[in-house]
Amino acid sequence: MKKKVAIVGASGYSGEELVRLLLHHPHVELAAVTSRQCAGQTVAQVFPKFAHHPGAKTLRFTEPNAELLAKQTEIIFLALPHGVAAEYAVPLLQLGCQVIDLSADFRVKSVAVYKEFYAHDHPAPELLGTAVYGLPEIYRAHLINASLVASPGCYPTGILLPTIPLVRDGLIKPTGIIANSLSGVSGAGRTVKLDYLFVECNESVRPYGLPKHRHLSEIEQELSLAARTAVTIQFTPHLIPVNRGILTTLYLAPANHFSNAAELNELNEKVSTCYKTFYADSPFVRLLEDEALPDTKNVIGTNFIEIAWRLDARTGRLIVISALDNIVKGASGQAVQSFNILCGLPETAGLISSVS
Amino acid sequence: MKKKVAIVGASGYSGEELVRLLLHHPHVELAAVTSRQCAGQTVAQVFPKFAHHPGAKTLRFTEPNAELLAKQTEIIFLALPHGVAAEYAVPLLQLGCQVIDLSADFRVKSVAVYKEFYAHDHPAPELLGTAVYGLPEIYRAHLINASLVASPGCYPTGILLPTIPLVRDGLIKPTGIIANSLSGVSGAGRTVKLDYLFVECNESVRPYGLPKHRHLSEIEQELSLAARTAVTIQFTPHLIPVNRGILTTLYLAPANHFSNAAELNELNEKVSTCYKTFYADSPFVRLLEDEALPDTKNVIGTNFIEIAWRLDARTGRLIVISALDNIVKGASGQAVQSFNILCGLPETAGLISSVS
Amino acid sequence: MKKKVAIVGASGYSGEELVRLLLHHPHVELAAVTSRQCAGQTVAQVFPKFAHHPGAKTLRFTEPNAELLAKQTEIIFLALPHGVAAEYAVPLLQLGCQVIDLSADFRVKSVAVYKEFYAHDHPAPELLGTAVYGLPEIYRAHLINASLVASPGCYPTGILLPTIPLVRDGLIKPTGIIANSLSGVSGAGRTVKLDYLFVECNESVRPYGLPKHRHLSEIEQELSLAARTAVTIQFTPHLIPVNRGILTTLYLAPANHFSNAAELNELNEKVSTCYKTFYADSPFVRLLEDEALPDTKNVIGTNFIEIAWRLDARTGRLIVISALDNIVKGASGQAVQSFNILCGLPETAGLISSVS
Amino acid sequence: MKKKVAIVGASGYSGEELVRLLLHHPHVELAAVTSRQCAGQTVAQVFPKFAHHPGAKTLRFTEPNAELLAKQTEIIFLALPHGVAAEYAVPLLQLGCQVIDLSADFRVKSVAVYKEFYAHDHPAPELLGTAVYGLPEIYRAHLINASLVASPGCYPTGILLPTIPLVRDGLIKPTGIIANSLSGVSGAGRTVKLDYLFVECNESVRPYGLPKHRHLSEIEQELSLAARTAVTIQFTPHLIPVNRGILTTLYLAPANHFSNAAELNELNEKVSTCYKTFYADSPFVRLLEDEALPDTKNVIGTNFIEIAWRLDARTGRLIVISALDNIVKGASGQAVQSFNILCGLPETAGLISSVS
Repeated sequence: MKKKVAIVGASGYSGEELVRLLLHHPHVELAAVTSRQCAGQTVAQVFPKFAHHPGAKTLRFTEPNAELLAKQTEIIFLALPHGVAAEYAVPLLQLGCQVIDLSADFRVKSVAVYKEFYAHDHPAPELLGTAVYGLPEIYRAHLINASLVASPGCYPTGILLPTIPLVRDGLIKPTGIIANSLSGVSGAGRTVKLDYLFVECNESVRPYGLPKHRHLSEIEQELSLAARTAVTIQFTPHLIPVNRGILTTLYLAPANHFSNAAELNELNEKVSTCYKTFYADSPFVRLLEDEALPDTKNVIGTNFIEIAWRLDARTGRLIVISALDNIVKGASGQAVQSFNILCGLPETAGLISSVS
Repeated sequence: MKKKVAIVGASGYSGEELVRLLLHHPHVELAAVTSRQCAGQTVAQVFPKFAHHPGAKTLRFTEPNAELLAKQTEIIFLALPHGVAAEYAVPLLQLGCQVIDLSADFRVKSVAVYKEFYAHDHPAPELLGTAVYGLPEIYRAHLINASLVASPGCYPTGILLPTIPLVRDGLIKPTGIIANSLSGVSGAGRTVKLDYLFVECNESVRPYGLPKHRHLSEIEQELSLAARTAVTIQFTPHLIPVNRGILTTLYLAPANHFSNAAELNELNEKVSTCYKTFYADSPFVRLLEDEALPDTKNVIGTNFIEIAWRLDARTGRLIVISALDNIVKGASGQAVQSFNILCGLPETAGLISSVS
Repeated sequence: MKKKVAIVGASGYSGEELVRLLLHHPHVELAAVTSRQCAGQTVAQVFPKFAHHPGAKTLRFTEPNAELLAKQTEIIFLALPHGVAAEYAVPLLQLGCQVIDLSADFRVKSVAVYKEFYAHDHPAPELLGTAVYGLPEIYRAHLINASLVASPGCYPTGILLPTIPLVRDGLIKPTGIIANSLSGVSGAGRTVKLDYLFVECNESVRPYGLPKHRHLSEIEQELSLAARTAVTIQFTPHLIPVNRGILTTLYLAPANHFSNAAELNELNEKVSTCYKTFYADSPFVRLLEDEALPDTKNVIGTNFIEIAWRLDARTGRLIVISALDNIVKGASGQAVQSFNILCGLPETAGLISSVS
Repeated sequence: MKKKVAIVGASGYSGEELVRLLLHHPHVELAAVTSRQCAGQTVAQVFPKFAHHPGAKTLRFTEPNAELLAKQTEIIFLALPHGVAAEYAVPLLQLGCQVIDLSADFRVKSVAVYKEFYAHDHPAPELLGTAVYGLPEIYRAHLINASLVASPGCYPTGILLPTIPLVRDGLIKPTGIIANSLSGVSGAGRTVKLDYLFVECNESVRPYGLPKHRHLSEIEQELSLAARTAVTIQFTPHLIPVNRGILTTLYLAPANHFSNAAELNELNEKVSTCYKTFYADSPFVRLLEDEALPDTKNVIGTNFIEIAWRLDARTGRLIVISALDNIVKGASGQAVQSFNILCGLPETAGLISSVS
């Protein structure tokens, strides 16, 4: 039997991708989509590219209404701006829905950290304890039957998946971690601002949000849990002229120095084993072998993350690179992956098909 | 039972897209892929983006060998350069295979026209009579059980689908047709030439192949058949900096002049009815209504073609615009669509999924 | 002695380009730049790329004030939206300034045509008779000492320069002209709209403004003057993912049919002579010879327009293609070219340098 | 009196930019350009965008011939691949020419380091001692009348200019330096390889050359000289889909820890003073103030480098970001800057004009 689901705030890029994934999901009936600005229009009208889908022709956007949504659906995806999501999550949870929130509202456990990074009190602090951080490769067991999933941001996904196994296994020091990330413009959302005009982005590369990006709060929380000690990292996001994709280059310090080829090979083997073991049952983590290096064009439109690493004998550092699609593995695909686990479905349901 | 198929020449962009579509096709077993330069490598090695697919890890590229292919498979896709395809088609057909050829080798019926446009004698003129032009919306009935399918080029698809219904119904004059086409760079194939370097294409727009592009031979052949009179058209291709997509703007003369709003509305109605009737059972033709105009970004990665039209009261012309993905509907997707019909499968099998 | 000039509305793309050109112009002192939103900031702050210029560090944006501008400067460039320009032009002219207006406000001679295309009465109809259409290659003589210059739009420039000589010399019919234009996104101005976001434009090609674009009013006015008969043309603009550049493909009917190679060569010769004669003293018109075809990348950042043509023996048509930079030859460069003529300076002053 | 100069190997991207700069240079007569593949053609034919320049119409490419070049010219720019440049430099120097080499052939002082990074013996080790490393901001005094200039690579320029002042002043530790660089595709040269096709680069971001890029040899040599101790750095280049531009993000460790706001402000002041003092007379170094961060679009087409920095109170690190045009400040513009100094001309001659 199909799960009845809704998407609240379905007009942005993450919302659109959720529509795409859930319209075609074999175990889902997309029963409601909401958006203030699109209310009244069909999915086919708002997103011409889905116009061939029978559901897209009949399903109409509505104004968001928690009571109605709770009657029509069991599980609700929130694709809303930060701050707004919590307003919907509270009544929906009270009405018995399960909620998968793509915003930052429930990712941070500590109200103090939340206030430090988001500059206001958390609107529903009582829920922070119950939310599961929706990084399925790390919290698979906790996601089963979760009532509230806080789906991670795009940058955190690209940083945490390559680092958590190494930190947990003690292969790298938890200090001095540097993450240099390059993001496509869709990462800014369907936001109508001068900075994101074609002419302002094309033939341009630039850093931004330096040095204290909000995503640091969830990244450091999760790395600290993995390391069992407080971790502070260096993170620099950059905007590059592609629609989709995040490439992250991580500079890490191995826990033990290597000073000759034998030690380098040994450490290389350990890193390889660490990753292979940790991700043995993670269908969306693609560990690159031999000469291959991540390239966003190999993951765009898919829920995969590519990871590769190199030990540098000259500097003693471990360089790890990851690539993912910020809207799929970095947002909507990952939310569907959590949904699958939450519902007891195969983790890849609706996520691997001719697209990938 | 799954059909056993092979792809000969699977290392180019069309070949890669065939691999993607056929690996995931529910009624297909991709039994062989060939490429001189990739022989020995697995599909996963050649195309890292398919690495997660179980078949991609085990299936290895081989040198092309007609006898072996004929033993292993029933239906063979040729994704080879013009001229080379015929060399493989002849023995494969003799060995009893069905062949779907994506090259230009069997698209033109007349050996004289072939020689005029391709500058040499046709290598297998006896096969020209048996090949079916693989534009499923036009030749659906002929494709059933065809032994040799000549799959159309990308430009012809974008020009013929919007014009044939109008020409057949006598709504436009078969004279004076102008097709102005804009193509993404993948249309040139994975061809390592200076002209197609990133720096030479990015921030550049240019016409080429003017005024007598080879695709004119098949376009005019098919329009002449539809019009039952010899048709000559004006066609100008342009290269624009996108990976994929062809947008064609057609300038057409209505058969009857319209000189007031009533006549304009009447003709508009006729064009609308013509298209809706003609494409009523064509799942991949998307007729745009109301204010919408085609946009390549709505069809990229899919087998759909978008078509819209406008009557211009000032000039008396009918403007029709089409958009498609040159590698999918313009090449590999269309070939799979023909394959589906040829095999008696649903026309959309393996072509509509979460990708679209 | 340097001319004192001002730019009113200098914060858009055309304004920015005027700043660039006038800051470096050997015969200009840029004495004032205005912009409501940037008032108080220096040019260096608003446009970091000009920060090295001594003038950019000291010159501050001000609120626009006609009386003050008239005191400080002699010649004023208006880079304002349509409709707003006229409000400033009227008092500035009364105060004795010469005005070069980059908007559409004074391009059309007929108040009726203006109302038809712009949907409201002209705010200063008495000025329409005095404005000179600032296409220097056509109106060079009229520009000397002009008090009001109506600088042409980007599309009109790309269409008129290739067609006027042919129409004047009677080499083509003035009927049935088709102009298919492809424009970079800066053509939409620094307009913060969803349609012009990077993600909405990149990997996208689309027509727009079909079938009755406002620029048709000035194009047809000028072609009618050249042809001495009312001319109606077909014009389809398209948006393509480049920052700058317009490529226009024109479909024209030769006045006399050619039916063999000798006649084709003869006509070819006539077209060549027509262009070479007409543009003999036009330093910014680049007529391409031999095999070369226009490419926007050859004119970006410059005030040049490239023109090439081909006769099609199969269809009897003449195809002409032009390429220009929409912000330079299509806007600010052309305005400076008119300024040079108006002031009796060399036509290329400040326009040919290491940039081109 | 104008200097007579030649460009050997003028058909690549650096060669083309040298042609642009030298054709318009007020103190230069471009007397010869050579290229095996273009020999016989005029500059206007090879580079249509320079076709308007009188010199471009008459100057023809020739086969390179040292004796002839030495007769015709005084100063010779070599824009040749690594390894080939030395072959020309030796005879030209013997014939009394001054040589400005844009290749890597003479950048490294040590024959051992050269062999380590370039995998063969240096072809002219006796010249290594005489070559001046052509980073004018650092070696201005040495460039006056230099006989052989080794013009730096694009990555080294973006890394050395922001780090050398800090290292020299002892503000940062010379250990643990990380440089994360993003380069446009022209950095690969006009190289006809699959990797640089439009479709392979567009909508793609990827690291490469990891972990031991050849440019490390010159970077570490110069940093070691500045630090007066052997420096090893971490350097990761990435390819991003822009034509031009390099953005480098540097992660540096201040020599003294800062642990409160007062110390942070103090260090910030020291860094600011260090840069302003060091680059007080360097017209092409643009130090960004206030909130501004480097953006490649602000330097493209110019010889400027933008530099900004941020102290991170959370990590104790100093982040410095630089942006430059890889073909201008990273190659040809810088070579012309060295040429100006070498000849006793103003450093900005031919480099600041309406282009910038």
